[in-house]
Amino acid sequence: MMRSPKTLLWAFLAAGWAASVSLPALAANEAMLELLEELRDNGTISQEQYEVLRNSALADEEKGKAQVEEATKDLPVVTTKGKFEIASKDGNYKWSFGGRLQVDGAYFDNDRSALLSAAEVRRARVDVQGTVYKVWELKFEYEFTESPPDGIKDAYIKYVGFKPTSITVGNFKEPFSLEEMTSSRFITFMERALPNVFAPSRFLGAGVHTYGETWTAATGFFGNNVQEEAPEGYGIPARVTFAPVHEETRVAHLGANFQWRNTGDDKVVRFRQRPESHVTDVRLVDTGTKAKPNFDASSFTNAGAELAGVYGPWSVQGEYIGTWVHRETPGKSNPYFWGAYLQGSWFLTGESRNYKFTSGAFDNVKPKSNFSWGGGWGAWEAAFRYSYLDLSDQDINGGEQDDITLGLNWYVNPNIRFMWNLIKVLDVRGGPFNEAKPFIAQMRAQVIW
Amino acid sequence: MMRSPKTLLWAFLAAGWAASVSLPALAANEAMLELLEELRDNGTISQEQYEVLRNSALADEEKGKAQVEEATKDLPVVTTKGKFEIASKDGNYKWSFGGRLQVDGAYFDNDRSALLSAAEVRRARVDVQGTVYKVWELKFEYEFTESPPDGIKDAYIKYVGFKPTSITVGNFKEPFSLEEMTSSRFITFMERALPNVFAPSRFLGAGVHTYGETWTAATGFFGNNVQEEAPEGYGIPARVTFAPVHEETRVAHLGANFQWRNTGDDKVVRFRQRPESHVTDVRLVDTGTKAKPNFDASSFTNAGAELAGVYGPWSVQGEYIGTWVHRETPGKSNPYFWGAYLQGSWFLTGESRNYKFTSGAFDNVKPKSNFSWGGGWGAWEAAFRYSYLDLSDQDINGGEQDDITLGLNWYVNPNIRFMWNLIKVLDVRGGPFNEAKPFIAQMRAQVIW
Amino acid sequence: MMRSPKTLLWAFLAAGWAASVSLPALAANEAMLELLEELRDNGTISQEQYEVLRNSALADEEKGKAQVEEATKDLPVVTTKGKFEIASKDGNYKWSFGGRLQVDGAYFDNDRSALLSAAEVRRARVDVQGTVYKVWELKFEYEFTESPPDGIKDAYIKYVGFKPTSITVGNFKEPFSLEEMTSSRFITFMERALPNVFAPSRFLGAGVHTYGETWTAATGFFGNNVQEEAPEGYGIPARVTFAPVHEETRVAHLGANFQWRNTGDDKVVRFRQRPESHVTDVRLVDTGTKAKPNFDASSFTNAGAELAGVYGPWSVQGEYIGTWVHRETPGKSNPYFWGAYLQGSWFLTGESRNYKFTSGAFDNVKPKSNFSWGGGWGAWEAAFRYSYLDLSDQDINGGEQDDITLGLNWYVNPNIRFMWNLIKVLDVRGGPFNEAKPFIAQMRAQVIW
Repeated sequence: MMRSPKTLLWAFLAAGWAASVSLPALAANEAMLELLEELRDNGTISQEQYEVLRNSALADEEKGKAQVEEATKDLPVVTTKGKFEIASKDGNYKWSFGGRLQVDGAYFDNDRSALLSAAEVRRARVDVQGTVYKVWELKFEYEFTESPPDGIKDAYIKYVGFKPTSITVGNFKEPFSLEEMTSSRFITFMERALPNVFAPSRFLGAGVHTYGETWTAATGFFGNNVQEEAPEGYGIPARVTFAPVHEETRVAHLGANFQWRNTGDDKVVRFRQRPESHVTDVRLVDTGTKAKPNFDASSFTNAGAELAGVYGPWSVQGEYIGTWVHRETPGKSNPYFWGAYLQGSWFLTGESRNYKFTSGAFDNVKPKSNFSWGGGWGAWEAAFRYSYLDLSDQDINGGEQDDITLGLNWYVNPNIRFMWNLIKVLDVRGGPFNEAKPFIAQMRAQVIW
Repeated sequence: MMRSPKTLLWAFLAAGWAASVSLPALAANEAMLELLEELRDNGTISQEQYEVLRNSALADEEKGKAQVEEATKDLPVVTTKGKFEIASKDGNYKWSFGGRLQVDGAYFDNDRSALLSAAEVRRARVDVQGTVYKVWELKFEYEFTESPPDGIKDAYIKYVGFKPTSITVGNFKEPFSLEEMTSSRFITFMERALPNVFAPSRFLGAGVHTYGETWTAATGFFGNNVQEEAPEGYGIPARVTFAPVHEETRVAHLGANFQWRNTGDDKVVRFRQRPESHVTDVRLVDTGTKAKPNFDASSFTNAGAELAGVYGPWSVQGEYIGTWVHRETPGKSNPYFWGAYLQGSWFLTGESRNYKFTSGAFDNVKPKSNFSWGGGWGAWEAAFRYSYLDLSDQDINGGEQDDITLGLNWYVNPNIRFMWNLIKVLDVRGGPFNEAKPFIAQMRAQVIW
Repeated sequence: MMRSPKTLLWAFLAAGWAASVSLPALAANEAMLELLEELRDNGTISQEQYEVLRNSALADEEKGKAQVEEATKDLPVVTTKGKFEIASKDGNYKWSFGGRLQVDGAYFDNDRSALLSAAEVRRARVDVQGTVYKVWELKFEYEFTESPPDGIKDAYIKYVGFKPTSITVGNFKEPFSLEEMTSSRFITFMERALPNVFAPSRFLGAGVHTYGETWTAATGFFGNNVQEEAPEGYGIPARVTFAPVHEETRVAHLGANFQWRNTGDDKVVRFRQRPESHVTDVRLVDTGTKAKPNFDASSFTNAGAELAGVYGPWSVQGEYIGTWVHRETPGKSNPYFWGAYLQGSWFLTGESRNYKFTSGAFDNVKPKSNFSWGGGWGAWEAAFRYSYLDLSDQDINGGEQDDITLGLNWYVNPNIRFMWNLIKVLDVRGGPFNEAKPFIAQMRAQVIW
């Protein structure tokens, strides 16, 4: 009787150690069974004895399996691929330790702007995520760049007991804008497009998110920024997305988003935007400093429309976002600012952009073949973007800007990506850098885990 | 012969993977033993041969066990429940990765104070703890809130080779005050009581801690604060606790603590305290700023008395702390400040507050049933506190304050807690906010791991 | 037949769980084989049947081994000794979580310097290191001391596919100086010697490193400091080392290093150095503040020579570093600054300094016996150093300083070290603290993981 390999396999599979293990046909415990047969055939044991012994052996095997299953039910499930994760087998607990590192270098060919060529660590984030008692999730993520550090990013408790609805409390992104909802690890260009200035990003608050087969919906109530000591009013966002098609290589996405935000006691609204490069701190368009507020606003309203499509290696993505600022200054009407971008990309190596329909956003690209010397090429993607932002209206002269960007992405493997962006600021009209037309060449080395 | 399930179980148990695995009665290797019996009974093998074979099998089994034990002795012991921990089986090494996240929101109903309703991440701490070579422990814990971050919390090396005595060097809490010694994860209200202003909390230094069956004692020598560049003098604290009863549902605790602190070259002492809400930075009582020191002090002495009791779901806790400031200013006598609080709590769901007698402090509450939809309720605790602080004496007009607080705690499970506090400042007499009587409603979402 | 212990062992060994497991002679599955022999010998089964059954059993065993090997090939390899590491068995992925904690206390016996006795956390670093797809390595390390924190240390992506050559991009140390290349965990004294002021340490850039049997070579191109917003020019360093002998107890090391650095738009060069104690922020020698730059420099060039030797418990190490500052100020010639140190150490307990020839630097000392009460002593090392720094030349009066240091190191075990340093500043000539001759007594408690 040779049950050990079988039961051993059972043990490891039951332990869930290795989800990707392919189970071979098990070696039968031929010897014992053959021996019993021989003994029966040559009359050493009777047919009845044979059957009893055979059943006894098989029963032992069943009992053994059950015992092993019982004994191994608490073994953890470990993932080392891509990042380190460990979970209890019953799914009650899960811990993962992730991060991202983006190192940028930029060359600026200025005309009248004050951009200085340099390098920076664009993002250095480490996070811990956990699941406790199956339906409660936690995440804490910190951005270590800058001094003092840029600070707390995702920091929340999420209840996922009402699937597919989840409730989140803490610091996290207000649901708004396809590009903002897509992680900075997975966006097509090094920086989000100019209109991203209107996306609220993370605030302290509570929110609810749900989805169906072809749609998602999210809303919430959000207070002040986590880094601000003084209250900054509160915001109420909402986002709905519709994706009638979301296959692996074909996606059609439509979305609409909205935010109303009260400005609190400050009554200051300021929009300003870098020229799609973060290596500089110069903003070519800017509605004005807090010290010298250009307008006295009690609230503002953002609204946007999203569109994206994937067709094999081709993709397209675009958004329009507008903002109405509600002024309190007597005799002054409300300015309207807006921006839009449209981008397309093509995978030379045949991959498709990866869409996650449950969040209505894009996800990581998995190369068809990972790069290795003399082996695969990784995935190569060429991309083009036009983006526009208008921060001038009424008496506010924040400036108007449009940029074109050429991008090349090399996805070495699911963890490593190199990016090259060539940006031409076509024109800045008005604002602090009127008629600036700088050219920017920048690259990024990115590792995520 | 079917030894595999048995030895397999052995292997896993020896590996220590799953401390909570209940060992079922092992499936006997019935088939082989039965076969041998049959063969003996029908005369195929003799009684002697039977015994030799049977012994051979049993001996093999013993040898197998020993070998498996030997082979698996280096497997790590992993915990995923509550947090991630991994230890070598021999106990020489242990690593754990923990943290806490507290998200608060507060509504302030002001009269003459400048409290602004807002939300904040109250605490976002991540820690790593380790044991190396069995008797050396390390801990590094960082508080990520605020900008620049609040900084290093526990950061020490501890020698635990002289059990039950431990010696610690690094940054850690001076032994002082029951409520200060109780982790902020486990205190009954969202914030510690007003008199906590006198507790020194963490300083750089060295300390010794020991305990017996019913008592603990701790002292040390502590220098400056870890975040301060300039030296701030040094402190010598001591704390003794006595707990003649410390059962699971019954506790009687008495404690006394003391600290003498030299103020260093600064010669400045300042006490100020928030109104039991950390969402605001306003202190209703304050002995004065560093820029305008109200007194020129070479040192001060703190002393306090502690009392706590648990009787089933009921608990009571109180402390008195007084401070003598030793002034150097000629013609000015030494002021005496003091505070006290008394609180009671009741678990509607029958749990008891969890007391850890080796540290003389309260620990995490484990709900009798964890909350789940349609299942358990978690633990619910109602609590009441009265606290008082007097920072006015002699010519120092820091103010006098007393608060009452109503608290409700929902321990969803050992990792998640929601807290609601209603605080009424009964009166402030003197100080920067004379006659302020604000009302505060605040809540917290907490996850610990 | 009792295959289970054997196959079980196989499983665990295949799993790579425990590299240090010594494989005992396996218990043979005596019972089954003996039974078959008996049955053959007494004629119950024929010789042919015996052979078939025996082969069947052995074949089963082989199949079982192969299957177990297949099933367990994805189990991770875990290390808990010293630090926590987890790797996939195929080496494609590896994750480790490390750190260091150094707690210092210093007593200053001043004469005319403003040194204040105090304690500090000297270093509190946590890092995560990873390997993805075998040849790509990542490291992110953060220094948590100071407020705002000292910030990002190593943060890079490294390609190791062209062994022994590696290519690194991100934030890391420019290759320069033996003492700088030796980790602060492993240097002989609490602080590096005075001439370390010339070592560039970490910048954002790209570099290449390679080595042979007796040599290493490294160079790169580095831009600005990771914490600086404005560009600071760029640097091109190079380092070569030669170690004709690098055995466990005998080492001969020679090295040469170079850096040319452009100062960027700032055109400011400043060198200043603490008196080999970091507890103070006072620098006894200083070429001048940024606000009042003593010279207007477009670039500077560093060059240095290294020498080190190990002979059993004895070691010697020394460096000379000089710097030419290239001034732009008309009528002012270029100053030359330089420094040098020479140190020796002796292990009372017989260990040797540990040299890592692939990086041309010293590594961790492993005590012959770890300290335990009534057991081993750990390793004890006595050390002496003379160091000199001259920051005065031409019209620049930065000062000239020489120190002697007596050191005692107690390596409790590979994770814990205590250090005692007595430093006598022999003389300061010129600079901001002319004729200062303070004495410093300092100690450190260090834990690394």
